[in-house]
Amino acid sequence: MDKIKPQTLKGFRDFLPQDLVIRQKVIGTLKGVFESYGFQPLETPALEYAETLLGKYGEEADRLIYTFNDRGERKVGLRYDLTVPTARVLAQYAGKADKIPLPFKRYQIQPVWRAEKPQKGRYREFTQCDIDSFGSVSPLADAEIIAVIFSSLKALNFEKFTIRINSRQVLFRLMNDLGIKDKNQQLSALRAIDKLDKQSSQVVIAELKEKGFPEKLIKKLLYLIKAAKPDANLSELFSYLKRLGVNEKFWRFEPTLVRGLDYYTGPIFETAVEKPKIGSICGGGRYDNLVASLGGPNIPATGTTLGLDRLCDVIKEQNLWPNLSPTPSLVLVTVFSPELLEKSLALVSQLRQQKINTEIYLEPTAKLDKQLKYANQKKIPYIVILGPDEVKTGQVTLKNMISGVQEKIPQEKLVQKLS
Amino acid sequence: MDKIKPQTLKGFRDFLPQDLVIRQKVIGTLKGVFESYGFQPLETPALEYAETLLGKYGEEADRLIYTFNDRGERKVGLRYDLTVPTARVLAQYAGKADKIPLPFKRYQIQPVWRAEKPQKGRYREFTQCDIDSFGSVSPLADAEIIAVIFSSLKALNFEKFTIRINSRQVLFRLMNDLGIKDKNQQLSALRAIDKLDKQSSQVVIAELKEKGFPEKLIKKLLYLIKAAKPDANLSELFSYLKRLGVNEKFWRFEPTLVRGLDYYTGPIFETAVEKPKIGSICGGGRYDNLVASLGGPNIPATGTTLGLDRLCDVIKEQNLWPNLSPTPSLVLVTVFSPELLEKSLALVSQLRQQKINTEIYLEPTAKLDKQLKYANQKKIPYIVILGPDEVKTGQVTLKNMISGVQEKIPQEKLVQKLS
Repeated sequence: MDKIKPQTLKGFRDFLPQDLVIRQKVIGTLKGVFESYGFQPLETPALEYAETLLGKYGEEADRLIYTFNDRGERKVGLRYDLTVPTARVLAQYAGKADKIPLPFKRYQIQPVWRAEKPQKGRYREFTQCDIDSFGSVSPLADAEIIAVIFSSLKALNFEKFTIRINSRQVLFRLMNDLGIKDKNQQLSALRAIDKLDKQSSQVVIAELKEKGFPEKLIKKLLYLIKAAKPDANLSELFSYLKRLGVNEKFWRFEPTLVRGLDYYTGPIFETAVEKPKIGSICGGGRYDNLVASLGGPNIPATGTTLGLDRLCDVIKEQNLWPNLSPTPSLVLVTVFSPELLEKSLALVSQLRQQKINTEIYLEPTAKLDKQLKYANQKKIPYIVILGPDEVKTGQVTLKNMISGVQEKIPQEKLVQKLS
Repeated sequence: MDKIKPQTLKGFRDFLPQDLVIRQKVIGTLKGVFESYGFQPLETPALEYAETLLGKYGEEADRLIYTFNDRGERKVGLRYDLTVPTARVLAQYAGKADKIPLPFKRYQIQPVWRAEKPQKGRYREFTQCDIDSFGSVSPLADAEIIAVIFSSLKALNFEKFTIRINSRQVLFRLMNDLGIKDKNQQLSALRAIDKLDKQSSQVVIAELKEKGFPEKLIKKLLYLIKAAKPDANLSELFSYLKRLGVNEKFWRFEPTLVRGLDYYTGPIFETAVEKPKIGSICGGGRYDNLVASLGGPNIPATGTTLGLDRLCDVIKEQNLWPNLSPTPSLVLVTVFSPELLEKSLALVSQLRQQKINTEIYLEPTAKLDKQLKYANQKKIPYIVILGPDEVKTGQVTLKNMISGVQEKIPQEKLVQKLS
């Protein structure tokens, strides 16, 4: 038999323990914030009927959905995002108030799959953290989503970020006033204007011209968009932000914000940091028609996605969590010799009963050097030595692996010392 | 456009908030126990090269692996279990001690996919919770796995369970002594003997006869297996169990235990509860050749899988967690009238700052009745009413939704009352 080469698929990653320390802490922090606002967890399957996913995100996205025939019977697709599957859940359970009473506020933290061309910072499997509210048309629901974003980033130690806010209603009304009334024309124009962020006005104007808009109209449109003011709905939203404690330094009205997806119908928002340059770390908005388009009743909805990978990149790049322990273990109890193994095991049991995360080296005949090297590689902060001298006097030797300080202490003081 | 029917694929499940309360708590509890023993997290991709997965589990399992062509280029497969992907990681990173120092102890909690015929209690997507140690041949490593199983089930409130322990070495040696020396013959015999658990001796004897074993040999083999004693390796393992605090009432030597998978090479173990009748809730053993079979060096390994779905079934069936809160929210602050919304929002902000999970009803114009109904459906234990009378006197009305008791208290006492 040929020896196979062990490898991951391109665009897919293993997460080793050192990678997961930050990821797990981010997830735990986000869950805490989401729950503090009353959002409840939801999970949906990795696979859906392909027809549930296709035609929801736009043509380009459709090509990136992993679809295949399940046992040759049904065409299925891997989860492409968390919004569409949850909208499918709402459509499916609508009216069963015992299952999902409205308003329904859910969070969902699961991986999604996209057959993108793998490149630096772009993966085929990545994790999204979503919060969405279903059942309320009030801008209070949108404001709460933004408040959760604010609280989340604060809880993650982010110091600088900007939540930019606009409304599709403002944009649609403005286009209507200028005579651009066809829905497809409106969305086509928005897709070009969406690029104002990264491209020069010239590029955007050229694209709009190519799409058949007259130059005079384009200039007027861009001028009016840049000069637009919040409408009554957005102003109400802004007043709620203040009352929900969202500091004004961290958000602003941005009339040129458009967002890529076609399904947004109201307020939209996007959050970025200055460093590192990685695009937006979260984006979202109101999408009042999606549940109905999945075969459900009219249930208004608003929400946001936080990208776990990008959040972790910012935390690493800005060194926001300098003191995060790289290992769950607090102490390694070494085995001095096979004869003393029993004493070490008894101590290990005792420490674990006191809720102290404790390891023992799994080869009881290994030399002490090897055990210390293990503790060092695994960055375990303390080691305990229980040799014949220590046993005789009822003591243990405790070594701080970071400072190198080593001391003999009575065994009964060990728990207190480590707590 | 035809209205589509919103539905999940057969064998796949949505987990609504009420389903996830127990699941999340089980996962949190297991992680805590795993980490108390120094196991570190690992995650592997949902998709692997098909060749990594195929041919590892046996013929029948191979047919259940979801495989498809990724963009028509590579044959890929969805994760079938967590053991083979982790063994692939070990094979891939072997020798990079900065990545994975040995012994390596990892836990992994992720969904797996199997194209089984969907039926009651059998799903196509389910979650496994695995712990494995790589790099130690000592029975101390096996004993630690069993100690983690014991601690985990205790931490989950399980009162009655039995960890049955045997060793493939005992079984192989016994067959060698009887002249059954061919490896394939040995595994073939074991697969029949594995059924002693659920079938009568007659059925097992018939199967062995069909496989070509002489009746006299079969009777001798079964007699000797039932009368087998632990070997030196198992006896050493048992002595460690005691010292690691694993209560003798919860485990026993079971010479007829075989386990299904071909790759086990040493101690094997399986855990069951009496009620409900759902088969084993966890199983595992030593598999010293798997990493090498995936193209890596010889790295010994031992571990176990706990089935999340079955653990949750036991907890629900036996009502082990009667007081688990069905919602993360502690209190709903109602909105008495749009004019008083501001007062309610200020109180909500204040409570959240005090780490009290607080909700506000997302339609500020909704009648009080509707808000109370929402709290009731969502099983939020407390509601606060802040009407004109309360505002005038600096009080709030606090209602316990479980007992129905309602009282007016000074606003500054609210945090203390809810904490």
